[in-house]
Amino acid sequence: MSKHFGRQSVRFENPVYIITTASTVGPKEGEGPLAEFFDIILPDSLCGEDSWEKAESKIVKDTFGKALSKSKLSQENIDYIISGDLLNQNSGSTFAIRDMDIPFFGIFGACSTMGEGMSLGALLIDGGFANNILVGASSHFCASEKQFRFPLELGTQRTPTSTWTVTGQGSAILSNNTNEKCPRITAITTGKIIDMGITDANNMGAAMAPAAFDTLNAHFSDLSLNPDYYDLIITGDLGYVGHDLVLKMFSEKNMDLSKNYSDCGILIFDKDKQDTNSGGSGCACSAVTFAGYLYKKLKDEQLNKLLFVPTGALMSPTSAQQGETIPGIAHAIAIENI
Amino acid sequence: MSKHFGRQSVRFENPVYIITTASTVGPKEGEGPLAEFFDIILPDSLCGEDSWEKAESKIVKDTFGKALSKSKLSQENIDYIISGDLLNQNSGSTFAIRDMDIPFFGIFGACSTMGEGMSLGALLIDGGFANNILVGASSHFCASEKQFRFPLELGTQRTPTSTWTVTGQGSAILSNNTNEKCPRITAITTGKIIDMGITDANNMGAAMAPAAFDTLNAHFSDLSLNPDYYDLIITGDLGYVGHDLVLKMFSEKNMDLSKNYSDCGILIFDKDKQDTNSGGSGCACSAVTFAGYLYKKLKDEQLNKLLFVPTGALMSPTSAQQGETIPGIAHAIAIENI
Repeated sequence: MSKHFGRQSVRFENPVYIITTASTVGPKEGEGPLAEFFDIILPDSLCGEDSWEKAESKIVKDTFGKALSKSKLSQENIDYIISGDLLNQNSGSTFAIRDMDIPFFGIFGACSTMGEGMSLGALLIDGGFANNILVGASSHFCASEKQFRFPLELGTQRTPTSTWTVTGQGSAILSNNTNEKCPRITAITTGKIIDMGITDANNMGAAMAPAAFDTLNAHFSDLSLNPDYYDLIITGDLGYVGHDLVLKMFSEKNMDLSKNYSDCGILIFDKDKQDTNSGGSGCACSAVTFAGYLYKKLKDEQLNKLLFVPTGALMSPTSAQQGETIPGIAHAIAIENI
Repeated sequence: MSKHFGRQSVRFENPVYIITTASTVGPKEGEGPLAEFFDIILPDSLCGEDSWEKAESKIVKDTFGKALSKSKLSQENIDYIISGDLLNQNSGSTFAIRDMDIPFFGIFGACSTMGEGMSLGALLIDGGFANNILVGASSHFCASEKQFRFPLELGTQRTPTSTWTVTGQGSAILSNNTNEKCPRITAITTGKIIDMGITDANNMGAAMAPAAFDTLNAHFSDLSLNPDYYDLIITGDLGYVGHDLVLKMFSEKNMDLSKNYSDCGILIFDKDKQDTNSGGSGCACSAVTFAGYLYKKLKDEQLNKLLFVPTGALMSPTSAQQGETIPGIAHAIAIENI
């Protein structure tokens, strides 16, 4: 087990290239600061469908198709598809994929799903089980609000700590082979579930921050790295509230992450102009920020060492109603130009 | 990619041992024909908790604990835990695992979850990423009926094609090392999603049978095997209706599986005495039948070549209400004494 380091980390021995990515976002994300980096910006959230859930599946299907066409690979070249989302029974993914002739692993990591998928994909590529793997994660603001909180029609007020679920899907194709210079997944740190007793479903950042802190600590320790090894460390959807908590937890360990740590939920919206309170969230928040913005920065070598850490809150509406606290998880993916 | 065969199959190069299993079932399963094979039979479905969802998490936690104690391994010896269930947002698993100090991959394959978990676990062991992996899948009759169909209190009549969701959890520990003779996972065939247009949520057997047929066909073809290579081929939860459909689909290809093909949903209940109509279903149906009955038959060498094929119906209540059909999936796991 020479590839395993410490309790939670793997350093890959074989190249795992991210040969292409694709991203679709809704109209609100298309008005945000990262708009220029997305492949597809939808004119409306229904995407031509008659329900938000069907819209999400359409987005997933179209974005996977976009990733395939950008990579010039066909379905037959893809050995596995690994996908997940926030909808009950992963239906955002399964209904999108049912017409694709590709072996399928469905995953659930809440908003950490893109990290879980990229981790499993990289493990299968390094292990010699696949040449090309298609990975993706999606969410939809309207479907999520309906499922997790209140129907939009109620016009419920949002608290200052609440986040805005990103509508969209981010895809990536992982491969053991490339014709051009591509960023590589060099290591992963797989998260444990951390539950510090937060019960406020409108403060996900606080619920997930301890999990992000735990995974980051494990990553630095398992692989003997300092945080300043990375050009950028970016969590998935902690928003302003969770981001500040992570900074504070590290500062209590006398570690300063303020120079190279950010969060996808902070980057994707303009807080002041877009009324998004603590920031963006949802599986798509980290997935589209990676597939759109971060991947292009890596390709252009404006970023060369990225630690991408999608974060997830593993609660359900039923568990919240039954008084349970909110368990969190975070998976770290080291992506480097080498 | 020398380990990959055909479109969907992997033959393992390194030993992947199933070193132990554990199973918990509810009172109804404890009155069925396989009762003597289960580790824990609950006296009641609430398991000392105040909701069915909390009961399911308690069952998951206790059964994982049982597997650890049977194997004499501690949590620190387990590199990954891979788990899933039918509850929204995988909450049966996540709330069970939050106190365990083990890196976690959450999966969703509906009732095929045990197959997906064993597949991913075997891939990670063979790939050299882990020494020991804990895999499990659970379901709960009362929680499932409430979530997918009608609250039990309504006393809704069940159709002849309907199946009975098994209450319980099945766990297995996969390892690259063993002190005693243990069955090995020698190959897997990962399913594609197959949707033949079935819309009746009370006829899951018919919805999943084409996926089972597709995966079995791929397995025999990818690995150049005849069905009679196996002592037993057993699907997860097709019940009587789906089992007969699979036999019929093979007979149309002039292949006779009638001698060595059965289904966990047929074995777990006594149809006549227990009023279970088409048979058992749910993630736990295949998981406990494997972890209880089939594993002991392998250890006792009454079975030496088993093809275990958990089957899943990937619908959600929302997709059904929106008029969608029911996509199916099946994953095949070859387990042999060699």
